[in-house]
Amino acid sequence: MPAPPQAFFDALDAVLPKGTVSRDPNDLAEYGRDWTRVLSPAPCAVALPRTTYEVGRIVETCAQHEVAIVPSGGRTGLAGGAMACNGELVVSLTRMRAIRAVDAVGATVRVQAGAITQAVHEHCAEHGLTWPVDFASKGSSTVGGNIATNAGGVKVIRYGLTRQWVLGLEVVVASGETLELGGALEKNNTGVDLRQLFIGSEGTLGIVTEATLKLVRLPGKLDVLLFAVPDLAGVLRLFRETRAAPLTLAAYEMFTAECLARVVKHRKLRPPLEAPSPFYVLVELEDASREAIETWVQSLFERGIVQDGVLAQTMAEARDLWALREGISESLSATGMPHKNDIALPIAALEAFSAELGDVFTRRYPGWEVCVFGHVGDGNLHVNVMKPEGMEKAAFLDRTHEADRDLFDLVKKHAGSISAEHGIGLLKKAWLPWTRSEADRALMRAIKKAVDPAGIFNPGKILD
Amino acid sequence: MPAPPQAFFDALDAVLPKGTVSRDPNDLAEYGRDWTRVLSPAPCAVALPRTTYEVGRIVETCAQHEVAIVPSGGRTGLAGGAMACNGELVVSLTRMRAIRAVDAVGATVRVQAGAITQAVHEHCAEHGLTWPVDFASKGSSTVGGNIATNAGGVKVIRYGLTRQWVLGLEVVVASGETLELGGALEKNNTGVDLRQLFIGSEGTLGIVTEATLKLVRLPGKLDVLLFAVPDLAGVLRLFRETRAAPLTLAAYEMFTAECLARVVKHRKLRPPLEAPSPFYVLVELEDASREAIETWVQSLFERGIVQDGVLAQTMAEARDLWALREGISESLSATGMPHKNDIALPIAALEAFSAELGDVFTRRYPGWEVCVFGHVGDGNLHVNVMKPEGMEKAAFLDRTHEADRDLFDLVKKHAGSISAEHGIGLLKKAWLPWTRSEADRALMRAIKKAVDPAGIFNPGKILD
Repeated sequence: MPAPPQAFFDALDAVLPKGTVSRDPNDLAEYGRDWTRVLSPAPCAVALPRTTYEVGRIVETCAQHEVAIVPSGGRTGLAGGAMACNGELVVSLTRMRAIRAVDAVGATVRVQAGAITQAVHEHCAEHGLTWPVDFASKGSSTVGGNIATNAGGVKVIRYGLTRQWVLGLEVVVASGETLELGGALEKNNTGVDLRQLFIGSEGTLGIVTEATLKLVRLPGKLDVLLFAVPDLAGVLRLFRETRAAPLTLAAYEMFTAECLARVVKHRKLRPPLEAPSPFYVLVELEDASREAIETWVQSLFERGIVQDGVLAQTMAEARDLWALREGISESLSATGMPHKNDIALPIAALEAFSAELGDVFTRRYPGWEVCVFGHVGDGNLHVNVMKPEGMEKAAFLDRTHEADRDLFDLVKKHAGSISAEHGIGLLKKAWLPWTRSEADRALMRAIKKAVDPAGIFNPGKILD
Repeated sequence: MPAPPQAFFDALDAVLPKGTVSRDPNDLAEYGRDWTRVLSPAPCAVALPRTTYEVGRIVETCAQHEVAIVPSGGRTGLAGGAMACNGELVVSLTRMRAIRAVDAVGATVRVQAGAITQAVHEHCAEHGLTWPVDFASKGSSTVGGNIATNAGGVKVIRYGLTRQWVLGLEVVVASGETLELGGALEKNNTGVDLRQLFIGSEGTLGIVTEATLKLVRLPGKLDVLLFAVPDLAGVLRLFRETRAAPLTLAAYEMFTAECLARVVKHRKLRPPLEAPSPFYVLVELEDASREAIETWVQSLFERGIVQDGVLAQTMAEARDLWALREGISESLSATGMPHKNDIALPIAALEAFSAELGDVFTRRYPGWEVCVFGHVGDGNLHVNVMKPEGMEKAAFLDRTHEADRDLFDLVKKHAGSISAEHGIGLLKKAWLPWTRSEADRALMRAIKKAVDPAGIFNPGKILD
């Protein structure tokens, strides 16, 4: 894409306060990329507006000059959704981080899109409330980015995805106009719910500038348990038992012996249970009495549903158990070279899918170690394929593309998703047809055309 | 609209099994209307397909012959969304009522759109699970209708709207093609979530033919309490206390002394509490220990948050307390002539809105009794204006239009919704601009045009 003419930058300067637009190479390099490191940033400039009004003027000016926009939040995405590689204008919301007063009766809070997720948590905690969108990058991610990617995380089984916790959206659309969608209303059945279009659209339909968030009471006490089970069928049997028990399940995370071995090796830990086990399950329970937990655990042992287990007795022990799960990603990278995928399956298909995946890798990729872990309770698996010790890096990367196809063929066969949480962005675009049909993609294109006729918002992301 | 030519009916007969299409006047009268009785049904015919394939052929044929379609479920709607008044073809899903096997591990069930809501409940209850979409008309309403209207009801405060409980949708779109959106996946961040477009679209974008529903564990014990509070501020103070307590709130319903008086009169009941009170609150708690309830109630009395109250000691007493709330609608009709509205406000605006509403009615409509009740916990108020005793019916109806404008002006001022649960359909169309801005409606129109270019689905509903 050719660089925009000087007239474009003059027009921006004419409608924006001084210091709003930067063409400093350091800013271009910083704001032009997200956490995906495989592509090079090349924006034409970075705009850092302070108000919704300024965002509107930026969009108007870009529309007049046919300059594409990459909306940008905390840039913690893993699919390249916030990469600006083709001379786009990055519109970063990071200066729009106001968090208004909490409405403690209605349990809502209005924030600007650039508010940091964790800052929202801290603000609401003073009222005994929280916005239950929670994951590792919450210290950098922004509410606008959470909404644009419909962020998931460790609490989805308890609270659902970001979509469920957004009551109102203020969005600047392609005309430069501002839409106010929903507000602080739980119920508003007045035609097509346009909020839902923008949630998860990865910046391809407009720029979210403010949101009214729905809050929930902070949980009281949390109990963490780790169980050993012999196989994936056992993981699922325990899941059913846990869901059927009169307990509030806050997390249900699974990992394999391979994952645990690498965490134990990297972090120099003692294994959490005496005998090794092929599969481990971490269970977190909310506000359960000690008696209820003990009765339930005893029944699990008596019926042979779990082989071994431990209940954290202190907060330090609970943190240690969580570290076994949360340390996996880092430990895989530290002890080898992982190739990562983030998929979802119907829970009913998990066992067959996993067996077939094991077969394919045994047959076609002998010697490759597959480390699987994830939020089993919502069907989300992180499948990490490790480079075999003796293999060249380039040869491994070459073959991972083939392995991805084998993986996604199985995902498709079992009606799963090629991207559970991370989105499509640039990196997963080629695989989109494995989850979304031709008619489905055609309708997505028609919607994009209807909402952003000139295609100025994040072109080339999700769809070409 | 002129009647379609015989060639249209011949074309339908050519692609559908015998007995699928009816032009019997009784069928036209029955299937051409919903629960709104103010309009006359006048469809050209009724199609009763048994399969998604047949729905696709019907849509194709209608598109070829430019015949409009009114999708139809249990016809319990209150906004005229399923009325066929202009020679449309009614496509009733009532023969498509299959309910597949429950996936007890994943807690999902796949159903055809014509499945009756209550039949789904009964089917899932065998597994200790439920689809938590619940309201008075569940014995007649269908899952497809629940989805098309994003149905609410008495459990929204606990479980949210229908939108939250739909994992996958099968939809026949304007081309006659079938889209499979989502499936049995909790997480699927692969571009714009097209499911969300169809949920709440009142049949204007396509025909939902099947859905994969998300289920939840059936609640254990439920406790019902009724409290007396002096004013709306007290209703909201109690709400905050209830939400902050370590209790699971299953319902929080409010009604005024005026409502209670009419229920007591109509049903010949004894008042539930000794001294009358301007406001009453019904609270339902899920799986709370008797000790926790008693501690909490004692604290409410000690701090003067409630003036009086009763905890149901038996299931019969719980039913009696619920009857006070659920009997209101019927009792208003039996004891007078109500004019009904179903609005939502931000919870933070409820008190100011109610005060201003009282002022307007005192000033402009002296002698009119306003009966307010509803799901205060989610900001939803049912505002029923009663015809004064001596006033002519026609004069009253004339003036209710003016009163609606006064009501909706206040709703707009406080950023509320003119239709919390019932939708827009035909009856609320004129008031849509009071909740959705011009830019918002323009985008809705653009979406409609993109998804249904020829405008064959439910024309004239929601928007002209």
